[in-house]
Amino acid sequence: MNKHILVLNGPNLNMLGIREPGVYGEVSLPQIEKHLSELASSQNVELTCIQSNHEGVLIDTIHAAYGKMDGILINPGAFTHYSYALRDAISSVKLPTVEVHLSNIHQRESFRHVSVIAPVADGQIAGFGAHSYELGFTALMNILKKAR
Amino acid sequence: MNKHILVLNGPNLNMLGIREPGVYGEVSLPQIEKHLSELASSQNVELTCIQSNHEGVLIDTIHAAYGKMDGILINPGAFTHYSYALRDAISSVKLPTVEVHLSNIHQRESFRHVSVIAPVADGQIAGFGAHSYELGFTALMNILKKAR
Amino acid sequence: MNKHILVLNGPNLNMLGIREPGVYGEVSLPQIEKHLSELASSQNVELTCIQSNHEGVLIDTIHAAYGKMDGILINPGAFTHYSYALRDAISSVKLPTVEVHLSNIHQRESFRHVSVIAPVADGQIAGFGAHSYELGFTALMNILKKAR
Amino acid sequence: MNKHILVLNGPNLNMLGIREPGVYGEVSLPQIEKHLSELASSQNVELTCIQSNHEGVLIDTIHAAYGKMDGILINPGAFTHYSYALRDAISSVKLPTVEVHLSNIHQRESFRHVSVIAPVADGQIAGFGAHSYELGFTALMNILKKAR
Amino acid sequence: MNKHILVLNGPNLNMLGIREPGVYGEVSLPQIEKHLSELASSQNVELTCIQSNHEGVLIDTIHAAYGKMDGILINPGAFTHYSYALRDAISSVKLPTVEVHLSNIHQRESFRHVSVIAPVADGQIAGFGAHSYELGFTALMNILKKAR
Amino acid sequence: MNKHILVLNGPNLNMLGIREPGVYGEVSLPQIEKHLSELASSQNVELTCIQSNHEGVLIDTIHAAYGKMDGILINPGAFTHYSYALRDAISSVKLPTVEVHLSNIHQRESFRHVSVIAPVADGQIAGFGAHSYELGFTALMNILKKAR
Amino acid sequence: MNKHILVLNGPNLNMLGIREPGVYGEVSLPQIEKHLSELASSQNVELTCIQSNHEGVLIDTIHAAYGKMDGILINPGAFTHYSYALRDAISSVKLPTVEVHLSNIHQRESFRHVSVIAPVADGQIAGFGAHSYELGFTALMNILKKAR
Amino acid sequence: MNKHILVLNGPNLNMLGIREPGVYGEVSLPQIEKHLSELASSQNVELTCIQSNHEGVLIDTIHAAYGKMDGILINPGAFTHYSYALRDAISSVKLPTVEVHLSNIHQRESFRHVSVIAPVADGQIAGFGAHSYELGFTALMNILKKAR
Amino acid sequence: MNKHILVLNGPNLNMLGIREPGVYGEVSLPQIEKHLSELASSQNVELTCIQSNHEGVLIDTIHAAYGKMDGILINPGAFTHYSYALRDAISSVKLPTVEVHLSNIHQRESFRHVSVIAPVADGQIAGFGAHSYELGFTALMNILKKAR
Amino acid sequence: MNKHILVLNGPNLNMLGIREPGVYGEVSLPQIEKHLSELASSQNVELTCIQSNHEGVLIDTIHAAYGKMDGILINPGAFTHYSYALRDAISSVKLPTVEVHLSNIHQRESFRHVSVIAPVADGQIAGFGAHSYELGFTALMNILKKAR
Amino acid sequence: MNKHILVLNGPNLNMLGIREPGVYGEVSLPQIEKHLSELASSQNVELTCIQSNHEGVLIDTIHAAYGKMDGILINPGAFTHYSYALRDAISSVKLPTVEVHLSNIHQRESFRHVSVIAPVADGQIAGFGAHSYELGFTALMNILKKAR
Amino acid sequence: MNKHILVLNGPNLNMLGIREPGVYGEVSLPQIEKHLSELASSQNVELTCIQSNHEGVLIDTIHAAYGKMDGILINPGAFTHYSYALRDAISSVKLPTVEVHLSNIHQRESFRHVSVIAPVADGQIAGFGAHSYELGFTALMNILKKAR
Repeated sequence: MNKHILVLNGPNLNMLGIREPGVYGEVSLPQIEKHLSELASSQNVELTCIQSNHEGVLIDTIHAAYGKMDGILINPGAFTHYSYALRDAISSVKLPTVEVHLSNIHQRESFRHVSVIAPVADGQIAGFGAHSYELGFTALMNILKKAR
Repeated sequence: MNKHILVLNGPNLNMLGIREPGVYGEVSLPQIEKHLSELASSQNVELTCIQSNHEGVLIDTIHAAYGKMDGILINPGAFTHYSYALRDAISSVKLPTVEVHLSNIHQRESFRHVSVIAPVADGQIAGFGAHSYELGFTALMNILKKAR
Repeated sequence: MNKHILVLNGPNLNMLGIREPGVYGEVSLPQIEKHLSELASSQNVELTCIQSNHEGVLIDTIHAAYGKMDGILINPGAFTHYSYALRDAISSVKLPTVEVHLSNIHQRESFRHVSVIAPVADGQIAGFGAHSYELGFTALMNILKKAR
Repeated sequence: MNKHILVLNGPNLNMLGIREPGVYGEVSLPQIEKHLSELASSQNVELTCIQSNHEGVLIDTIHAAYGKMDGILINPGAFTHYSYALRDAISSVKLPTVEVHLSNIHQRESFRHVSVIAPVADGQIAGFGAHSYELGFTALMNILKKAR
Repeated sequence: MNKHILVLNGPNLNMLGIREPGVYGEVSLPQIEKHLSELASSQNVELTCIQSNHEGVLIDTIHAAYGKMDGILINPGAFTHYSYALRDAISSVKLPTVEVHLSNIHQRESFRHVSVIAPVADGQIAGFGAHSYELGFTALMNILKKAR
Repeated sequence: MNKHILVLNGPNLNMLGIREPGVYGEVSLPQIEKHLSELASSQNVELTCIQSNHEGVLIDTIHAAYGKMDGILINPGAFTHYSYALRDAISSVKLPTVEVHLSNIHQRESFRHVSVIAPVADGQIAGFGAHSYELGFTALMNILKKAR
Repeated sequence: MNKHILVLNGPNLNMLGIREPGVYGEVSLPQIEKHLSELASSQNVELTCIQSNHEGVLIDTIHAAYGKMDGILINPGAFTHYSYALRDAISSVKLPTVEVHLSNIHQRESFRHVSVIAPVADGQIAGFGAHSYELGFTALMNILKKAR
Repeated sequence: MNKHILVLNGPNLNMLGIREPGVYGEVSLPQIEKHLSELASSQNVELTCIQSNHEGVLIDTIHAAYGKMDGILINPGAFTHYSYALRDAISSVKLPTVEVHLSNIHQRESFRHVSVIAPVADGQIAGFGAHSYELGFTALMNILKKAR
Repeated sequence: MNKHILVLNGPNLNMLGIREPGVYGEVSLPQIEKHLSELASSQNVELTCIQSNHEGVLIDTIHAAYGKMDGILINPGAFTHYSYALRDAISSVKLPTVEVHLSNIHQRESFRHVSVIAPVADGQIAGFGAHSYELGFTALMNILKKAR
Repeated sequence: MNKHILVLNGPNLNMLGIREPGVYGEVSLPQIEKHLSELASSQNVELTCIQSNHEGVLIDTIHAAYGKMDGILINPGAFTHYSYALRDAISSVKLPTVEVHLSNIHQRESFRHVSVIAPVADGQIAGFGAHSYELGFTALMNILKKAR
Repeated sequence: MNKHILVLNGPNLNMLGIREPGVYGEVSLPQIEKHLSELASSQNVELTCIQSNHEGVLIDTIHAAYGKMDGILINPGAFTHYSYALRDAISSVKLPTVEVHLSNIHQRESFRHVSVIAPVADGQIAGFGAHSYELGFTALMNILKKAR
Repeated sequence: MNKHILVLNGPNLNMLGIREPGVYGEVSLPQIEKHLSELASSQNVELTCIQSNHEGVLIDTIHAAYGKMDGILINPGAFTHYSYALRDAISSVKLPTVEVHLSNIHQRESFRHVSVIAPVADGQIAGFGAHSYELGFTALMNILKKAR
């Protein structure tokens, strides 16, 4: 298919494997990205993986993808719950976007039940640990396939 | 792996392909179930597919799965938003459970933003049309694999 | 005109004349249905009258009307206030639908002020006792006439 | 029967046929009043039709009906949603009162879902366009008949 | 003392003695005004008594009192609960103002528990029937006395 | 005394002893019913015990008790929190009704703090495990004794 | 008339003249009580004046008035806003009760806008400083006069 | 068994038989306590019965029971709805505690629907008049029996 | 350009320069209207300036502008916050409309933060004192220019 | 410096070391007071330590401190969350006041997140166990030093 | 006049002309800034135009303007709705500040109806597309003129 | 003790001494840091002081402290009220953390009453101006001492 996908991770996801392993599992972000890249390249898909704790960097990165990438796989971390700026960034580039979460956000503190990102994403996958990324990648590929 | 999975569909999902195709797509439920069964049998997994518009039938079916099946893939339809009885049924059997939705429920009427099922499911997948079932099946298989 | 109308009554309406006559009047449901049938046949309209205390039966009946009936006259009883499944059933068949209530639901307990059915019905008539059905039938006939 | 009915229309209803025809239809208020008067006179009922954009005029008119008229058919327009003064006026004269709306107010902006008039009216009819007035007239006649 | 007081009555108070006597008592507004005038003239105070069902008339009357009258005794009727325009009128003339109510508004429907007028009045008296006006007049006189 | 009591159990209570024993204890529903029947027959009271996961079946059963039974002992399970239809069924038959719960619903998830059944029951007993039924039976007997 | 009235003052009112004189004025409670007693004795009315910072003392005092006193004049202080026990005490003795406040509670912090006492009092007077007591005494006398 | 139980009654319960008999029945508190003591002594249980309108006295009494008594039967009266201090007192002594109410608090004013005590009590019994105490005593005995 | 603009001012704006000058400045409404007329005529635009404290008069004036004027510049005063009737009047004539406020309504009492007019106006300008009108006029002219 | 400080402890704090040691630690209140007194006397400060479960006693004690003491260190216990009377007592004496809590109230039940005392205290210290008192004492000393 | 104005644009405004042109129009940000600079220089005003997707950069820029610039024209983009840090930055420098928005934020998603910036800005202009900036510039100039 | 503490200051705290001195005092941040460093070094504790207006920088700094520092003293500024990302950063490193505020946030705008940081910090100190930092440092030292 020969596509190029942006894999974005928001604040604190660099601490995966360190932070609250009871909640998020023990796999680190580089391990997840490596695994996802292998899966992608087996399907002729190129991945660009970016993690940042800076809202502005995430927004700049999404803007830069405009006209260059084919879709976005994003785990917005805590920005899920309040970053309307990130939401507007996704709207502005109109790329197919899948939102993923490691934990089942509906089972945690009530502020985590609402995603301000969800209304501008194509779909949401939550609760499957590192496997959420893989499912999200597959979902995104399927959207791109249908859109051809 | 040789597993047995219960695929449950709640109210009005028998009308798929008929009802609001702009929202839910044009694939019918039998087509989804057939496709899913092929996927399952290719992995040595047996599926039992039940759709009902009766909350009580869904609950009875979940109870009957207790001790006989290995997991539940459920699209609770509108029961997602108010059936605490269905929620308790899922709690009572303690089987791995994945909740799927055809549409991105976070983009629709506000009453659809809350799932009373989510807090007792392992994870949630929403917004990918008929493909949500496939992703949900894969997610459930992965949970079962890890639980061995 | 030669039309076929489904007259649906929800939970506890079989108890009419027995239950809280101070609120609902002393006419029984069979009497209402008989009166309505006479009115209908005088206009060459066939009625099918169904009452059920089972949400699932009401939904199945609505689905069965799809492609066979011309309109729905429904008093959803207490389902008015929480059955999103019934609401989705009405959406799914896209038949002209009039919602009627015996009592003025806006004058009773606050939970009865909200109808989750109203947003998918063509109109709502409430507060005229058994006469609400007659008015609802007339309203439905008028919608069908305009739709020709 | 020889009755006298007050037909009241609230703010902006003089703009019917001009204002948002997609929502309210293309019939003008004089046409509705003419049609209703014919229906009334065929039943030996006299109508007095008043429209005003002034809350105070509507209240004065209701007071003037006290002891002179037999019932009120009212479309309070936007006053439906906030005029507690209009509500008290209806309470003060204790005449049978039917509230009608052209559009299904339960399908529009959320502020239109609540009627502060409904708790003091006998019943409510909404969503049938100009036909709502006819249904409301019939409902009011029926109340007066029963009250004899 | 030789003062001039504006006694304002809002919507539906002209119906006193007619409307819901169980709630408001059987004294009519002219009787209340006559009684109050006698009390006032015994203290060398002139009263101007105005009742209107028109919010605009009440506001115009308050503006006209500016620089001419010494205080306002007001029963805003149902405007108590929503007329921010009346509230601003009272603010604009900065006259000592006492708000009175016949019934104990805190014991009735919940919408009557909130007064949007109270924050701009000097004080509030509620629940003493026609005697509320007399108490309010006395209170107002006392404020004027202290302000000298 | 020679009375006949309906003992109703709502959704998922057939799973007692299986479902979340940490919360509900380890006694099964047949054991509770057997124990209760012995207690009843020692007081010359006949019991009819029904459990259903179907809201409609519970409603039908309540209706059938009308004119035949002397009181209702009900554990509505999760229907406690949303089944206005069940509530209306209890209202419609006007039998003495005692609501029981195994767990202290006020200590669990917030949605379990509100009972829509309580306003139409004579009283509520919650938090004593299987003993709640016994206490409820005693309470119901006492109501019947006083009502003679 | 020869009546006996209980004048109750709640928490912190002993600090009058000391506490926030900008809000409450500079008159002390003994001065208010003295003034009120003179007014009362001029009308052949006996006063018993009690101030307490103890909710229980206020309740005991109200109970003790049962069958011995003719009415209650109460400034509940901060208990106005949360003491349901004080409210029940007033209900239990069924004596005519007038609630007074020095300041206009509707102009202060939002928690002061709600009185849990008001629904069980005959009327409420707020905002006239020490004069509120005098007005309240007059109002109470008038209620007793009418009740004869 | 030889136990010692503290029977606590909160504010206004000393007025039982006087206060609102339509709501609470005509039995007095001493009668209830006498009846309960007879029941207790027949089971070799000693009762200490305390009623107070003072929150502090109730708290002191609970603290004094620590290490001396075996359980608490409490009707907190209006403190049920706001006394977090009473709640903490019950938490602090960790004795088995049963909360009882004469009336069905779920059928009365909305502020009575919430118990701040319930989350720290073992269970709640409401709505059975004086019989609630007897049921509560039985429930408490059963908890103590199981705890042995 | 040769346009005709309706300049509407709502309740209490006739008191400008008198009312709360600390909030609204010291310029009177006639001064504002004169200044605006000079600005308008320098651009060949005719102004009709209406101020009323009567909601009904404002609505009638808007209706009269239909088909005769080219745009509306409105300061709805306190009607901003509750007059759904005024809102519907603006909708009904579909003229370009700019809403202006002297003060920054977002800095004042919370009820002033919401404008029910804003959703039917083209834009809103608030906080610049008398200059708000000038800015609003310029904004309206620009809308008309683009619409040619 | 030679100051005199009132150390107030509210309801249930006498149970420290007994009550929920997992939450509050194992130090008793006498130990805390002894430690604090030693710290104080080392700085030439006299402490008066009062604990009471009676809201009225705490208020009386605060009033008694007026004009005699230099500051208040208070742990209001559960009164933190509802005692507006205690809040008014602190306002009335206008002494420098520091509020301390053993536990981090922001991490516990939601009703504990709000302090009605905080708006009238100089500052708040929460979450440091018995050390909170020491920090509070230091904070209070610093306020007194600056105020000289 | 010789002033220096900071023109700040928040997140995603660099995408203007690209992002949702149906909502925001087709003019790009550089075009807006160029047009504004021409307008400014014609009035001897220097502009410094900064756009950033980084909240921190916007705050740093505002701080840097302190003591160097004369006013701020800001379109905070999505930060309008949640950046209390940006709000505090504006407060900290106390420069005249005008908030502008391209779209009428009151007509869009409900989260866009609230501006946390508005309470610290002098005024707000919304809904006039690129012209909003011009109007905002004029408004700011007028504030500076008056402040001389 | 030989510890290393991270002292973090959030947005706008670099403006201390400049910004709203009436609220925050006149001491600058460098002065606070210098004073704190002297206190720390007197106890053999090393401080690293960082201030940033960038949420991302604060998060990166917290992550960098992981495994290198012994505790965090943080004044999150306005991030206190919405930065869930900062909260997650603190959770992720599991270091003892004390939250300090210069002003008593419970006395200011309502949005400042809630801290999203508090639930993950050990304790909170607010309202003591620059002294809050000193108290926070002492509190943190005490936690570290106990944790040994």
